[in-house]
Amino acid sequence: MGLKVYADRMSQPSRAVVIFCKINGIDFEEIRIDIFKKQQFSPEYKAINPMSLVPAITDGRFKLFESHAILIYICCAFPGVASHWYPGDLAKRAKIHSVLDWHHSNLRRGSVGLVFNSILAPVNGFPSNPRAAKEGEKILLKSLSKLETFWLKDGRFLVGSSQPSIADLSLVCEIMQLEFLSEKDRNRILSPYKKVLQWIDDTKTATAPHFDEVHGILFKAQKVIRERMKAESGKSELKSKL
Amino acid sequence: MGLKVYADRMSQPSRAVVIFCKINGIDFEEIRIDIFKKQQFSPEYKAINPMSLVPAITDGRFKLFESHAILIYICCAFPGVASHWYPGDLAKRAKIHSVLDWHHSNLRRGSVGLVFNSILAPVNGFPSNPRAAKEGEKILLKSLSKLETFWLKDGRFLVGSSQPSIADLSLVCEIMQLEFLSEKDRNRILSPYKKVLQWIDDTKTATAPHFDEVHGILFKAQKVIRERMKAESGKSELKSKL
Repeated sequence: MGLKVYADRMSQPSRAVVIFCKINGIDFEEIRIDIFKKQQFSPEYKAINPMSLVPAITDGRFKLFESHAILIYICCAFPGVASHWYPGDLAKRAKIHSVLDWHHSNLRRGSVGLVFNSILAPVNGFPSNPRAAKEGEKILLKSLSKLETFWLKDGRFLVGSSQPSIADLSLVCEIMQLEFLSEKDRNRILSPYKKVLQWIDDTKTATAPHFDEVHGILFKAQKVIRERMKAESGKSELKSKL
Repeated sequence: MGLKVYADRMSQPSRAVVIFCKINGIDFEEIRIDIFKKQQFSPEYKAINPMSLVPAITDGRFKLFESHAILIYICCAFPGVASHWYPGDLAKRAKIHSVLDWHHSNLRRGSVGLVFNSILAPVNGFPSNPRAAKEGEKILLKSLSKLETFWLKDGRFLVGSSQPSIADLSLVCEIMQLEFLSEKDRNRILSPYKKVLQWIDDTKTATAPHFDEVHGILFKAQKVIRERMKAESGKSELKSKL
């Protein structure tokens, strides 16, 4: 009857919750909900999260979904979580809520819009949507610029902190989704943002070795997808030459 | 140096914050940032909220934006706010975070997508975007259905509460934006959702007389917009008859 985390490590908010539990030594059971097998639509899972999204948790009879709400709940319900993850200080906590709220309609919306519509949809047999991908990229670039010039302007981590909070982990896991793009596209998008790149590295270091371990499936999938895309582009090149 | 709320009552999250301060007898100064006059882009306002959105607050030297974060901050920083707005109980508070997080990419995204692209954009001289409006309506209808069947299933207010929380106020202020649509469209969209309609009324009653007072500008604007749209549609009818 302890903490159960329903997650698919291909999902960025799932990874944030799993890494967070691991780094804080929380005793939990990870239950895989394979989104590509549509397990999130099973009646059993819908009884936990009727929105059919991952992650969700149960803690005894208590059920919860939405990753930010889950991270805050774990910070408060489990003893031993270091205070920098979700500080008790009112002003610091308010700033963390602010950046987490901002995330929804900015970084997350941009990243999902771009990566899903340009890569994950076609790879999983859905039609690609270049218009939605383009809109997503526009929102993503604007969000990265705000991260560089505002959210990261006062410290190594978000909102002027010297240690990571749940917001750093959540947002960096989102940006990791760009690994699905071609290396050229990923670099084109991220390389102008030096502070963002440093912050990604700092967050990885602060959550090692769990960060890379939990992202393992993403790197495997990335390799397969990049090879497949290379082959596809080779085919089209060949076709255009014939 | 007390609490200052930077708001435009045409904006739904601005209204939620202003109503909340009034109902809780909080001493604050409301400073109008007229979004149709683009005052949110002034250097003075960008020093408070670099995202150029309303609302934002200052409390002495402390600055904050994102309405959910603001509401939570006020609940915690000002004595005398009744606990039902943001309960101290961990599980209840987590559920409120969950519905507020859900709001961003669902109800809010749907409502803004529909109302801005079909009504507010053309009225303010921007091109209307029927595709984005249609997408918004789709998300909005799905969100209303989740409100009816899930979020309101266990009580008069969200997440099984018998008294309103900051989430009720925030989400109901969002739905009020539908008043900008024609009466026919508003009723077509909302009338299937009986629990939602009752909940809107209950939230209005629980926050009277401030709810209607703060929405005054919306009702005035609604009248002007509906008359203008009627005249436009009359013109097109006349044209088609000639």
